[in-house]
Amino acid sequence: MIIGELLNSSRKSIRSLIEGQNEAALLEIAQSQVAAGADYLDLNCGAFVKDEVERLAWLVDTVAAAVDKPLCLDSPNARALAAALPLARGPVMINSISAETARYREILPLALEYKTKLVALCMDDEAIPTSAEARYAIGARLTEDLLAAGISPDDIYLDPMVQPIAVSARGALVIFDTVRLLRNNYPGVHCVCGLSNISFGLPNRRLINRYFLAQAIACGIDSFILDPTDRQLMGCYVASRALIGEDKFCAKYLKAHRGGLFAE
Amino acid sequence: MIIGELLNSSRKSIRSLIEGQNEAALLEIAQSQVAAGADYLDLNCGAFVKDEVERLAWLVDTVAAAVDKPLCLDSPNARALAAALPLARGPVMINSISAETARYREILPLALEYKTKLVALCMDDEAIPTSAEARYAIGARLTEDLLAAGISPDDIYLDPMVQPIAVSARGALVIFDTVRLLRNNYPGVHCVCGLSNISFGLPNRRLINRYFLAQAIACGIDSFILDPTDRQLMGCYVASRALIGEDKFCAKYLKAHRGGLFAE
Repeated sequence: MIIGELLNSSRKSIRSLIEGQNEAALLEIAQSQVAAGADYLDLNCGAFVKDEVERLAWLVDTVAAAVDKPLCLDSPNARALAAALPLARGPVMINSISAETARYREILPLALEYKTKLVALCMDDEAIPTSAEARYAIGARLTEDLLAAGISPDDIYLDPMVQPIAVSARGALVIFDTVRLLRNNYPGVHCVCGLSNISFGLPNRRLINRYFLAQAIACGIDSFILDPTDRQLMGCYVASRALIGEDKFCAKYLKAHRGGLFAE
Repeated sequence: MIIGELLNSSRKSIRSLIEGQNEAALLEIAQSQVAAGADYLDLNCGAFVKDEVERLAWLVDTVAAAVDKPLCLDSPNARALAAALPLARGPVMINSISAETARYREILPLALEYKTKLVALCMDDEAIPTSAEARYAIGARLTEDLLAAGISPDDIYLDPMVQPIAVSARGALVIFDTVRLLRNNYPGVHCVCGLSNISFGLPNRRLINRYFLAQAIACGIDSFILDPTDRQLMGCYVASRALIGEDKFCAKYLKAHRGGLFAE
């Protein structure tokens, strides 16, 4: 599953468009992500510290009214989520819950009430553990708690929390090991991650992100928060899915080839 | 470790150059692979069915006299290897032994006599098994036998035998699973593979080969038989090694960036 990441207020251009309530430009970006293959659209207004609640509600209402794709409401703020959730038509995902006590307690009821999918971060009140075993332990506890609360395994998307290889040489290895443990022990639950953190601080970031995507797909992550309009990245996604046998007769790969996705 | 694959008589142009004993052109290809980062140079005369013995001896002698890199003698033919081995100056690798009874019996003494490294194919007299478990079992038996015969673990390069994803959807997954089993049980032994088989029968083969390389590096293969003069492929190699933490402070990655490896 691909969650289109572009409508995020941490990008300055998007922040300005939201600030100016530029519906047309925002919807064009939304539609371009759908056309490029996004299954969900991430919507984030976290850069608006004072009025995230109103901004997110406006953005969700605006996109939901015009675009026929499920939305991923990207906020740790339960008030912002509570205001926006009734405005999202159709299936919806919350990005994100975690094992942090307050966040878990505030967001879980919203997920249950609106029957949402949930990105669940492998971190707790203490922070993000450095070892795969400790990160897995948080993910396992979170999974058990969510299942016991009535969330369906198919609605849980565990995020192992990508950290830059420029900061920690084991940054990617920890992800692979954490995900292998999660997939072996909870095969019905999904794993999701963003890509761009991995290359923070290095040049040629898109290249690193792409090879990391290929590796993450091979290690069992099945959902990604990424820019679907990046054609090389989508080419990597399609080829990597074929490599792990998730593309019967390589039909999607061949279709992408005929459509010119690999041309550049 | 990178084994440069270009001097292989299955390539028509190389076959012609060997046939014409065109030393200058062959040495230029050898040098270009060394300049691009090859650690070993593979030499193959298998296309010469009648006179492989003489051809390989000539090629090994020619390259060894001019190029200061270890050679990888690529033949299942013990007579060809026996004739060529005395001509290879410096460290040498045999590509390949396997668990096939006759091949194992004929090639092992040569490896011991010349203290060579060994590519060891995970196949026996019955053929290449389709399941990772069965392929691992052959690799494990081969490793035990080679160790018992006195081959050092550091000289063993197990090849899990890449097969096309266009033929078997699990082609790459079987490799990842086999290698994980081998690495977990024989951590001191290397794994090696060629890349191009994976994409046989599909378009955009270089793209698939590249993403497969990224995945193979992540799953624990540490040595590759590839074309080091393919800059995009070498870019993938350098970036993927940094991703798995095998590049302290990302120094090689940054050097490759400054050198323009990622320019195109």
